Amino acid sequence: MRLLRPSWAGLVRGRHHQHHRRFLLTTSRGSNGEREEQQQHSKWSTPGSRSEQLLYAAIWAGGLSLGYHWLTDKNNHVLLEGQKVPSEEELEATARLWHVTTRKELPTYRADQVEQHNCAEKRVWVTYGLGVYDVTDFAENHPGGDKILMAAGSAIDPFWAIYQQHNTLEVLELLEGFRIGNLEGQVVTNAEDELGSPWSQEPQRHALLKPASKRPFNAEPPIGLLADQFYTPNDLFYVRNHLPVPVINPADYELEIEGGVKEKTLTLEEVKALPKHSVTAAIMCGGNRRSEMTKIKAVKGLSWGAGAVGNAKWSGARLCDVLREQGVQPDETKHVIFEGADLDPTSHPYGASIPLAKALDPRGDVILAYEMNDEPLSRDHGFPIRVIVPGTVGARNVKWLTRIVVADKESDSHWQQNDYKGFSPSTDWDTVDFSKSDAIQAMPVTSAICTPQPGARVKVDDNEGHITVRGYAWSGGGRKIVRVDLTNDEGVSWHVAELEQEEMPDGRHYGWSLWTARLPVSEAQRKAGDVEIWAKAVDSAYNVQPEKFEHIWNLRGVLANAYHKVKVKIV
Amino acid sequence: MRLLRPSWAGLVRGRHHQHHRRFLLTTSRGSNGEREEQQQHSKWSTPGSRSEQLLYAAIWAGGLSLGYHWLTDKNNHVLLEGQKVPSEEELEATARLWHVTTRKELPTYRADQVEQHNCAEKRVWVTYGLGVYDVTDFAENHPGGDKILMAAGSAIDPFWAIYQQHNTLEVLELLEGFRIGNLEGQVVTNAEDELGSPWSQEPQRHALLKPASKRPFNAEPPIGLLADQFYTPNDLFYVRNHLPVPVINPADYELEIEGGVKEKTLTLEEVKALPKHSVTAAIMCGGNRRSEMTKIKAVKGLSWGAGAVGNAKWSGARLCDVLREQGVQPDETKHVIFEGADLDPTSHPYGASIPLAKALDPRGDVILAYEMNDEPLSRDHGFPIRVIVPGTVGARNVKWLTRIVVADKESDSHWQQNDYKGFSPSTDWDTVDFSKSDAIQAMPVTSAICTPQPGARVKVDDNEGHITVRGYAWSGGGRKIVRVDLTNDEGVSWHVAELEQEEMPDGRHYGWSLWTARLPVSEAQRKAGDVEIWAKAVDSAYNVQPEKFEHIWNLRGVLANAYHKVKVKIV
Repeated sequence: MRLLRPSWAGLVRGRHHQHHRRFLLTTSRGSNGEREEQQQHSKWSTPGSRSEQLLYAAIWAGGLSLGYHWLTDKNNHVLLEGQKVPSEEELEATARLWHVTTRKELPTYRADQVEQHNCAEKRVWVTYGLGVYDVTDFAENHPGGDKILMAAGSAIDPFWAIYQQHNTLEVLELLEGFRIGNLEGQVVTNAEDELGSPWSQEPQRHALLKPASKRPFNAEPPIGLLADQFYTPNDLFYVRNHLPVPVINPADYELEIEGGVKEKTLTLEEVKALPKHSVTAAIMCGGNRRSEMTKIKAVKGLSWGAGAVGNAKWSGARLCDVLREQGVQPDETKHVIFEGADLDPTSHPYGASIPLAKALDPRGDVILAYEMNDEPLSRDHGFPIRVIVPGTVGARNVKWLTRIVVADKESDSHWQQNDYKGFSPSTDWDTVDFSKSDAIQAMPVTSAICTPQPGARVKVDDNEGHITVRGYAWSGGGRKIVRVDLTNDEGVSWHVAELEQEEMPDGRHYGWSLWTARLPVSEAQRKAGDVEIWAKAVDSAYNVQPEKFEHIWNLRGVLANAYHKVKVKIV
Repeated sequence: MRLLRPSWAGLVRGRHHQHHRRFLLTTSRGSNGEREEQQQHSKWSTPGSRSEQLLYAAIWAGGLSLGYHWLTDKNNHVLLEGQKVPSEEELEATARLWHVTTRKELPTYRADQVEQHNCAEKRVWVTYGLGVYDVTDFAENHPGGDKILMAAGSAIDPFWAIYQQHNTLEVLELLEGFRIGNLEGQVVTNAEDELGSPWSQEPQRHALLKPASKRPFNAEPPIGLLADQFYTPNDLFYVRNHLPVPVINPADYELEIEGGVKEKTLTLEEVKALPKHSVTAAIMCGGNRRSEMTKIKAVKGLSWGAGAVGNAKWSGARLCDVLREQGVQPDETKHVIFEGADLDPTSHPYGASIPLAKALDPRGDVILAYEMNDEPLSRDHGFPIRVIVPGTVGARNVKWLTRIVVADKESDSHWQQNDYKGFSPSTDWDTVDFSKSDAIQAMPVTSAICTPQPGARVKVDDNEGHITVRGYAWSGGGRKIVRVDLTNDEGVSWHVAELEQEEMPDGRHYGWSLWTARLPVSEAQRKAGDVEIWAKAVDSAYNVQPEKFEHIWNLRGVLANAYHKVKVKIV
């Protein structure tokens, strides 16, 4: 298959670029020790003891493993008394210069010397800009195991080009703590500006999409707009990219299919020539509403609001038709692996899998979609083909689909094996064992209040003393929403919302439900001025949302489906 | 089909029997008014105002509609000061004599006079024993609508013969409040003793089964035994009967099948000649754990503990094979109605339905079971054939199956239409509209602690300071249990249990999971002596149990799947 993919080959091989800021600073520092250095230049002290630093190291290492996510845990910095308190932004801007700054007190190494240090026995060295770092201690504490060794003996720049959320104060600070030298002959330029940058061909996005991260691009629409339309407009549909958006020429596109009695390659036109099937399905990120869960205790991941979900009509060929044509037989032990055209720096594609039983079930409605709300897929949504797995967590709805494999095992991708899984609230990064937990497939029941928004000033209907509340509700596995209950008095009284939903049989009810409720506001509440509204949904298996996040907290902040609670002001 | 069914025909037509006590009392009362009468004879006063009585009337009427259930709400009786306080039993024994007692201050009516009063316009009269009652006010408040009119102008005795839970102090008291006369020529005998009594041929039951009601027989095993074996022993498997157990001669048994291109009748031998299929499935009553929910606020229904569930290997013919053979085609708008040989006093069979899609799905594993744990079904469990609908609430697993109908609509039975549905916590008997809610099919995720039992004195493991906790977990719809979390410090720390479960693919994981956890007991907890253990399960859709019953409370007390909490003493 000939795809025009963003290239980082030069970055990986050459290690002669740095990508992420335009500045090229050569200001040197004094020679009286690293800690003092930093205080002089950045006007703040490195917080914490060595053990705290190691904790951050673990977080950083986890951040590398799970690197396409924000590190949402923030640290309070200890500042020297009497000094001007710099802002977080100022501190971070300074920290971003360190790795492009020669430290004269440290020795200089050639690239081939760094390359020798590519395993724990010889120490693990990496370079970043013109800095040389010994991260052996990180590697040992690395929750993701060997992942960190991908950069051993070479540059982390290309990885961080993808996983830009490493560019936080905490991570930069940590890294500089492991600095052991300067890289010889390093010319620092801005890789962003180069044609070959993996980010140089990102599509234009709607101005209203609010990014949770820019590279990779992850963004949600304003939640206040979300319940306005049953079908979410394509350009306001949340975007969840794990890697740079590939550039695919539809004429060159090929979809490889392995499994069954024969292998096959389909062109886009051949997929379109198959019987066309449409399904209304909400797609929801496993981390939707993470920003609420992280308030209980910090979690790792993009800080999504309640907008990492959208509802669309998807059209394309049925996967079950394609697999049956291939001669694939039902086998409940098997899986179907999907691979995208989006590649990580080691040229591994994004990948995920679902059970073969779901793929073959005509009621499963898995389709090779080339249309979203009757328009061709946009690049951000998987052009030319995205597999839509209705009722299943967004991560399995692989975009830029280029390969389908019927296999004995689940996808061995990072995202199937070491991410998108649930854990007990007491499981932490020291005790987590991803192999012990099941990959998320169907999602649990959830709901959210879209209007009014938190802090809104809400007018009470004069005639009847009510306020109007609107939102969405959805459950995975095709389970219909059967009821949404609202309260504005902490559950003393519940009010059943009116539902707007597609008429589909249960088990195949993949679209979301919008709902509207009118809640009475008491005289006392009007006087108090503040009201907290709670929403909870019930699905056709009569599963309900849990009341609060405390007991469903998990270290990755997924499955955040507790009651949605919104405080508003009554006027 | 020739079935030997318990007969109540005589009771319905003749109205010349009373059934439920051996006593035949003719003691007359004074003539100075009803209220005083009752105080003189029963040494207690009728509690409450007229409006309270009307409330009870509604409860009673609801009890008639839902009459095969206990009324779990008890009333505190106002007793005259200085008098000996009679026990509830003494009061009830007295109350049971009223309807067989002539009240000389009241007029006497002939049966044909009573018969005239069979609608609201002419007033609704009923008789019970030799009492004549005007229940017009009940009828108007009757949540179940017209149901109460089944007895209008005639005797309620045959209904109460089935729905013996009417024989509570509150209901009898209420009824006597509506007494307007005595029935002429009434000879009161004890119908129980007669050969034709619907209850005369109930099977023998295991002594350990703890009845929630005796007629119909509803009983659960001691929960302490429940997690001992993965397959629940047949004679300890909970029994949920809605009506008397029919007597079926296997040689005479016939199963009618309507739908598809032809109708068919299968004998037992013909069913057994079909390919035999086995499935491990837990069956759970929709009201399992109701006794916990009713503590929040009274609900109507049998007061089940956590033992209204059992796990068995069921064997029989696949329903999908039978229906396909009939030429039934997939149609997601259709339903499959099941009818049992158990009849109510109006000769309507117990009935329920499931979606046709579930019935036709080979992965749905719906079977016409004639074996339970490799033994023929016992009479209490549906001999000779019970339809097993894995993953679906017990009520749809119709016993003594005699008829299967593929239909455009759900079963119109009471149990499908006006029972076994969920409602918002704020829905009460005044506002409930059963037509607005979905019949329960798949059940939500739940779990229960079987050992230690509440109040148990638990020894801490000397070496490690742990206690061992065991229980079950299950979710409907074939969803596998993926995790059970335990805490003994209100969720500060959670401990993941070891699971014992069948290896089955998700979506077809119909058996329950047993689990064992070892919980550390702190020094402080040992000193305090009391520990509360909480259990919560997570299913493969990552649905979780709600924390508490307050916000899932519903007037029928079904779907009681909040965390299971057990207080024990540490020794």
